[in-house]
Amino acid sequence: MAHKHGHGHGRERIQFANAEDKQEFSKYPTKAGRRSLSRSISQSSTDSYSSAASYTDSSDDETSPRDKAQVNTHGSSDFCVKNIKQAEFGRREIEIAEQDMSALISLRKRAQGEKPLAGAKIVGCTHITAQTAVLIETLVALGAQCRWTACNIYSTQNEVAAALAETGVPVFAWKGESEDDFWWCIDRCVNTEGWQANMILDDGGDLTHWVYKKYPSVFKKARGIVEESVTGVHRLYQLSKAGKLCVPAMNVNDSVTKQKFDNLYCCRESILDGLKRTTDIMFGGKQVVVCGYGEVGKGCCTALKALGAIVCITEIDPICALQACMDGFRVVKLSEVIRQMDVVITCTGNKNVVTREQLDRMKNGCIVCNMGHSNTEIDVASLRSPELTWERVRSQVDHIIWPDGKRVVLLAEGRLLNLSCSTVPTFVLSITATTQALALIELFNAPEGRYKQDVYLLPKKMDEYVASLHLPNFDAHLTELTDEQAKYMGLNKNGPFKPNYYRY
Amino acid sequence: MAHKHGHGHGRERIQFANAEDKQEFSKYPTKAGRRSLSRSISQSSTDSYSSAASYTDSSDDETSPRDKAQVNTHGSSDFCVKNIKQAEFGRREIEIAEQDMSALISLRKRAQGEKPLAGAKIVGCTHITAQTAVLIETLVALGAQCRWTACNIYSTQNEVAAALAETGVPVFAWKGESEDDFWWCIDRCVNTEGWQANMILDDGGDLTHWVYKKYPSVFKKARGIVEESVTGVHRLYQLSKAGKLCVPAMNVNDSVTKQKFDNLYCCRESILDGLKRTTDIMFGGKQVVVCGYGEVGKGCCTALKALGAIVCITEIDPICALQACMDGFRVVKLSEVIRQMDVVITCTGNKNVVTREQLDRMKNGCIVCNMGHSNTEIDVASLRSPELTWERVRSQVDHIIWPDGKRVVLLAEGRLLNLSCSTVPTFVLSITATTQALALIELFNAPEGRYKQDVYLLPKKMDEYVASLHLPNFDAHLTELTDEQAKYMGLNKNGPFKPNYYRY
Amino acid sequence: MAHKHGHGHGRERIQFANAEDKQEFSKYPTKAGRRSLSRSISQSSTDSYSSAASYTDSSDDETSPRDKAQVNTHGSSDFCVKNIKQAEFGRREIEIAEQDMSALISLRKRAQGEKPLAGAKIVGCTHITAQTAVLIETLVALGAQCRWTACNIYSTQNEVAAALAETGVPVFAWKGESEDDFWWCIDRCVNTEGWQANMILDDGGDLTHWVYKKYPSVFKKARGIVEESVTGVHRLYQLSKAGKLCVPAMNVNDSVTKQKFDNLYCCRESILDGLKRTTDIMFGGKQVVVCGYGEVGKGCCTALKALGAIVCITEIDPICALQACMDGFRVVKLSEVIRQMDVVITCTGNKNVVTREQLDRMKNGCIVCNMGHSNTEIDVASLRSPELTWERVRSQVDHIIWPDGKRVVLLAEGRLLNLSCSTVPTFVLSITATTQALALIELFNAPEGRYKQDVYLLPKKMDEYVASLHLPNFDAHLTELTDEQAKYMGLNKNGPFKPNYYRY
Amino acid sequence: MAHKHGHGHGRERIQFANAEDKQEFSKYPTKAGRRSLSRSISQSSTDSYSSAASYTDSSDDETSPRDKAQVNTHGSSDFCVKNIKQAEFGRREIEIAEQDMSALISLRKRAQGEKPLAGAKIVGCTHITAQTAVLIETLVALGAQCRWTACNIYSTQNEVAAALAETGVPVFAWKGESEDDFWWCIDRCVNTEGWQANMILDDGGDLTHWVYKKYPSVFKKARGIVEESVTGVHRLYQLSKAGKLCVPAMNVNDSVTKQKFDNLYCCRESILDGLKRTTDIMFGGKQVVVCGYGEVGKGCCTALKALGAIVCITEIDPICALQACMDGFRVVKLSEVIRQMDVVITCTGNKNVVTREQLDRMKNGCIVCNMGHSNTEIDVASLRSPELTWERVRSQVDHIIWPDGKRVVLLAEGRLLNLSCSTVPTFVLSITATTQALALIELFNAPEGRYKQDVYLLPKKMDEYVASLHLPNFDAHLTELTDEQAKYMGLNKNGPFKPNYYRY
Repeated sequence: MAHKHGHGHGRERIQFANAEDKQEFSKYPTKAGRRSLSRSISQSSTDSYSSAASYTDSSDDETSPRDKAQVNTHGSSDFCVKNIKQAEFGRREIEIAEQDMSALISLRKRAQGEKPLAGAKIVGCTHITAQTAVLIETLVALGAQCRWTACNIYSTQNEVAAALAETGVPVFAWKGESEDDFWWCIDRCVNTEGWQANMILDDGGDLTHWVYKKYPSVFKKARGIVEESVTGVHRLYQLSKAGKLCVPAMNVNDSVTKQKFDNLYCCRESILDGLKRTTDIMFGGKQVVVCGYGEVGKGCCTALKALGAIVCITEIDPICALQACMDGFRVVKLSEVIRQMDVVITCTGNKNVVTREQLDRMKNGCIVCNMGHSNTEIDVASLRSPELTWERVRSQVDHIIWPDGKRVVLLAEGRLLNLSCSTVPTFVLSITATTQALALIELFNAPEGRYKQDVYLLPKKMDEYVASLHLPNFDAHLTELTDEQAKYMGLNKNGPFKPNYYRY
Repeated sequence: MAHKHGHGHGRERIQFANAEDKQEFSKYPTKAGRRSLSRSISQSSTDSYSSAASYTDSSDDETSPRDKAQVNTHGSSDFCVKNIKQAEFGRREIEIAEQDMSALISLRKRAQGEKPLAGAKIVGCTHITAQTAVLIETLVALGAQCRWTACNIYSTQNEVAAALAETGVPVFAWKGESEDDFWWCIDRCVNTEGWQANMILDDGGDLTHWVYKKYPSVFKKARGIVEESVTGVHRLYQLSKAGKLCVPAMNVNDSVTKQKFDNLYCCRESILDGLKRTTDIMFGGKQVVVCGYGEVGKGCCTALKALGAIVCITEIDPICALQACMDGFRVVKLSEVIRQMDVVITCTGNKNVVTREQLDRMKNGCIVCNMGHSNTEIDVASLRSPELTWERVRSQVDHIIWPDGKRVVLLAEGRLLNLSCSTVPTFVLSITATTQALALIELFNAPEGRYKQDVYLLPKKMDEYVASLHLPNFDAHLTELTDEQAKYMGLNKNGPFKPNYYRY
Repeated sequence: MAHKHGHGHGRERIQFANAEDKQEFSKYPTKAGRRSLSRSISQSSTDSYSSAASYTDSSDDETSPRDKAQVNTHGSSDFCVKNIKQAEFGRREIEIAEQDMSALISLRKRAQGEKPLAGAKIVGCTHITAQTAVLIETLVALGAQCRWTACNIYSTQNEVAAALAETGVPVFAWKGESEDDFWWCIDRCVNTEGWQANMILDDGGDLTHWVYKKYPSVFKKARGIVEESVTGVHRLYQLSKAGKLCVPAMNVNDSVTKQKFDNLYCCRESILDGLKRTTDIMFGGKQVVVCGYGEVGKGCCTALKALGAIVCITEIDPICALQACMDGFRVVKLSEVIRQMDVVITCTGNKNVVTREQLDRMKNGCIVCNMGHSNTEIDVASLRSPELTWERVRSQVDHIIWPDGKRVVLLAEGRLLNLSCSTVPTFVLSITATTQALALIELFNAPEGRYKQDVYLLPKKMDEYVASLHLPNFDAHLTELTDEQAKYMGLNKNGPFKPNYYRY
Repeated sequence: MAHKHGHGHGRERIQFANAEDKQEFSKYPTKAGRRSLSRSISQSSTDSYSSAASYTDSSDDETSPRDKAQVNTHGSSDFCVKNIKQAEFGRREIEIAEQDMSALISLRKRAQGEKPLAGAKIVGCTHITAQTAVLIETLVALGAQCRWTACNIYSTQNEVAAALAETGVPVFAWKGESEDDFWWCIDRCVNTEGWQANMILDDGGDLTHWVYKKYPSVFKKARGIVEESVTGVHRLYQLSKAGKLCVPAMNVNDSVTKQKFDNLYCCRESILDGLKRTTDIMFGGKQVVVCGYGEVGKGCCTALKALGAIVCITEIDPICALQACMDGFRVVKLSEVIRQMDVVITCTGNKNVVTREQLDRMKNGCIVCNMGHSNTEIDVASLRSPELTWERVRSQVDHIIWPDGKRVVLLAEGRLLNLSCSTVPTFVLSITATTQALALIELFNAPEGRYKQDVYLLPKKMDEYVASLHLPNFDAHLTELTDEQAKYMGLNKNGPFKPNYYRY
């Protein structure tokens, strides 16, 4: 059962046609650092994104959705999904997701009367999952018309796409698209008679790119772009710098709630889940080195230590290193400890953090995985060499076998462990989706001139609003300032409560 | 042994002569929020700041130092301390402090050859403790001439002041100064023949204020002011706003290392120490409510939970509240839980967070204390009423007794618990002192024009340098970027490693 | 997709033929308490015990193994497994398990020269998994002859059984046996010409029972029985009490290593894994009540609190309750908190701990599961009533829907969550398997008279030896007593180090 | 300020007159192991036991209490304390203690009507502190007559002794007794006209010893002895073994509540307190080695890790070592890590655990202290040699200075840190005191024949009762078994709930 070397693992990123864009992309990491979870979602298009992705797919036919004629029960055929008949199953998945997304449901209720998105025509390009469906249906409930496509060729939950199409949202997406399918779907989404988008919700920048290239006139009437990913945000800043951004854009990637909750808290849980599902490892007493003590690294370290692992870290930044010290982690160089480690986890956003030389020195049974960005952190390419044998022992788990019999356990071929091998809690996705919805409302309703042709962060007050919508999940009760206290602190009783530079 | 009501507890703040200044001060809290540890040091001038403050004082005579003629062994009498003969004892205290301040010692060694402060004439106004002495002697070793006075009438360690005076640093300070003494000392420090300061190191802004009022010409040649406290920083921003700041000023209060380490980590340890020393409380199973989940609150909650207390929090800011939820703390309104609590801790920076009505509803034996700013958080004044009996049971511990016999245990009369009832680890003071030293070096050596008449934060690279100087304490080994990695990340191999808005 | 009510979920326990045995069984729980993990393994025979159980099964034919003629490559047909051709796959599974069972491998090496089990003829009846295979092959390496059968009709890993059969161990077991198959396999295992067992290794007591009923003469020459499960141990004590136990028996269920490690540490990890795999729940901020604060409850509480859940407990025993208080958990009655809880977990070993009335009061989305013994703790039967709708949403996950739309999420139909929905780390199984091996060696080699016809605990020194064999996994280095220290403590330098009543 | 070497640090133990007793004592440690907290209280008679011990002593006269004629306000002079006039102050201390000893108060209320100790004549020999006073006054409230003396020449709180004497309890004790005073007090306590004790409450065995030697006839009518310390319990077992025990004795030292709460939980808090009060150390990032992972070591490790220290342990027992691994601590030999450690803590109950050779290898500033038994664990004697300089820097803190300037910080001269340098929470003392009271009630009221001339553990049901009396402190609510559940579990609804061997 030797693993096939060298075969292309599908495209990790839709390639742009011209050199300029490529360059933009290749320059990306200079600014991005490690806060790159969502961008990585966009990138790792071969990851099986969700364990729920293929409930009913197994017996499906092989016909391309593009070749099928499908009609929903309302007579519409303005969609293209795998199988419209899966709608009922998908509806149930959406209902389950709604249980953990009460912030969006609450937003629906609060804003439904006034329909703040009445008149909004939104094209969206995101992962198509039950959670996204809750977002889309919220936008519709608030008055918007939506057309949707997938930002990733593998991550679509076909049943959910069917459920959306059934209720009348034109969706163009299925799991396992080809690259040609991918752009065809985007085009079908944007290019429709008698309807022109005035807002874009993007994850990764591909939709924005396509509209720029093919339908630049859309931007004349557009109220704005909301972008979630590091990659997409980076492109927008590049455009802005080059003077080519012709609508306001909202960077939701760098909002506090997204950063702190997606990275610190989400990774705190998913590192355990990802390791457990793939290796059944017992954490107690395991020697673990975590490379990078940013938010992702902090989350990983907290969880592993809490379950009895003995964790040390590597860092390049002395401030983060000092935090690690105070938090009780030894700060080491990887080479000093590599021989003793049971688990090596990368969270740096950098490349070649784990080198072949270090892989050579690992002990038998050492587990290596990546929680950082993309698949560059571990030099996996160096392992695809003739003297090493790959043995796939489980889905997402390879044993790399050295000539002397030593085995290193590589997870997800060095791609993001938590996206490949665990699930992302709906609650975290709810925070992001709520932020997106508020960004759309803000841009759509902002008075003329509040936003120019530039990239903006969500106003802190809206960050606070997103947070407040999630507090009922925890039965949390906020304290209100008295008039006297508000005056003493120089604060408005309704916030914002902190200066912009506050570090939380 | 009833507590004497109504007597003035000494001045909590040197009063300014004119209304304008008073107003500046009264406006202070509007910006300060809860990051106010050092400012509070400045304020709580009646606190017995350090347990080491009075080793040899008990049998001292009552003569005012101003009336004594003292000469050090080098023949100098340019100082005014309690008793120059205590120098040897003070020297040993300084030596002990040096053991935990290896960052400053290391800075001495690295910069000693080049004498980066040669020509600097620094007047300083800070707490005078063994740790400050290590700072002052570092400045001297780097080439500076220094004159020093105390920012607080109670916090001076007399032996340390003597040791400094013995080695030739003109020090004007003793424990238990009167208000008149306080200003006399500042004046003696600044106003000396044949010597004019060109830099100011201030903690609280009193020295700066005095120079502004009395010797404004000093600012003509001064290279800058380094200010540590929230109060002082606030005044500088006010001056800057009013166009009256005539030299560059460095705000070291808001540097990352100071904020995160002084607040989060220092409070994590001192809350336990402060409660234990005053009440011998067993933490396990105690119901505790912490008001405020900023850095100070986070530190308190972490420690208390770690030792088995059951902690809930109150918050006004939904983002901090959501963090508390994710960290495992119930978010409540104080009134909902006040009857059940064993301990109530305030960390908000606000006023009247604990009201008389809530104090009335506490259960017998409830402990109430403040880790936030100043002494406003608990409405202590409301407890000084005829129907309640105060009983001082230990130093810093009062039982307030209700007519029905209920006792509430009030610590430090609502002033800062960790400054009043515990000690601040030398290691934390080392971080602050190193930051001050680097700020002085930076301002003194900056090329013309780099800094204007404004308030600046320390450059991030220097923050990182402060951190790196403290890593050897932990035997921590930083990883260096390879050229390839630095290029990939778009970083200089020597830092800075993070954008300015990075939240750590 | 409504769940089928009322269908029998297979036998949960092989039924005995006569009333006396039944009564023994029904009396069991009176002594068992909550230290019942392994017994529950034995009981929950319908659980899909291991995620690795069915790698290659899907395309198998439907012919009963009893009707197949199979021969291994050595020409032997003294076995009955699903498909001898799966041996190679099974071998690899065994090799992977060996990596985490270095204690057994080490035991093989240490004892291989002297063959301490030479002459031992062992019949075994346990789960047949890769880990058991490592045990069996260790026994063989130490000189024993073994015949093996399964203690559970569902838990056999067919490939592993094939691998054992291929190397010459007569194995009679496959996944999905009928009750008749079950006893047929046991009989084939015991009843073979020219070979009579002199030792029994049992898990659940079924093999022991069969030998008692059918081949009592076996006990005339047997050196002893080693029993792992609470159920089996209970039966042995009953036999002993009744004067019917005619060989020495070793109770490995109550050894320290098994109790503390299987229960506390194993549950600490598996509660998270079980909840995550079934529900993708985010732990941060979840309100959880854990019923029972024994070892299992302690493990669950520790892990959940560490990941940010807010945990309270229920207890009947004031000592355990006081421990919970000191550990920072509120001690409540279930009815007081049931309305607020997000998750309810039972770990009591009792019955009807969660009643229908309490289920009625849970909030929408509440997750209910059992980590205790058997499936009695939650009154699942009360939920199988006409007014409630069951919806199976995932494997092992049912939504129970109330008429008003409220959903309660029931996991594993109230059976043991960690066995049904997570995996047991090999490391924990290694501790148990090593204990079993040592118990067999001890009984087989004990001098005449050391053990009588009674039930024994493993000598503490052997408990300590089991532990010491596992320390190299952690690169742990024991300290040795000096002669002087040993004398001072009155200890032998090689142990045992603690009195029998030591509580660890 | 060099430390005086070689001076006798007072007697660490009252010496017995004859060889037999000495031998008994010298043999003690062979059985005691590390569960020796209370014994060590008894032993370390020079420790300043409580921070509250000397509130009002400073200006006292030097006259021996034995030479004073004192009368309380009721006209009685049957007592001997430092100064009867301090009674009011002592009364307040007792009242404060009562607040945290509600279990005893509750016991008073429950049993007051029936006066279960009516007729009991109790002589007691314990530490005389506010907490003991609450116990004594409880015994009186339940009907007993009491006479009391101190088990330690330094630990008496004079004000508390005065308060007891004032209310009519004959107390013979003061702080700073000579050895002759010690025995004189015991004798005065026992030998009084017209009154003969029928019960003994002892801590350390000195009172029991005296009665055996001088007034053996007392035992003819005595109902029993209650003994708290390891030392005293050991002596009782020796007597029992030798056939010389002539009354029933209750060993409260080995009761569950005492062991688990006194050791694990009490040390969890006091290690932090002891280190902080003496050294102001910051725990974050400190490298700590804890020698011994029994209950005391577990408590220390838990707390230090929780506050960010990096902890490793040493162990001789592989089972405890494996627990340490699973709990996330590296298990090392002391010599392997000694050079890197910031703090070394002994908790083994053994001798010479830290040797001179290891002290020689420690780094500059390393802190060394003992939480185990007696003062044998660190080889302090080896440090009293000419080439090393001792410098006392604070109370209980010595710097030992090597010829090269290296300083090792030795706390409490190697005696018990938590007794010397921190306080014991009243809550923990409440558990012990309640256990003592119940043991007295049980022995006094037991029907003829229940207890023979042997040493007994408190019945588990009473352990459970002690625990239950403390639950209201935490507002903890126990769950009651239903009849059906009790039957299913084979338990009495009122307990006991666990078998005797249960490990908690």
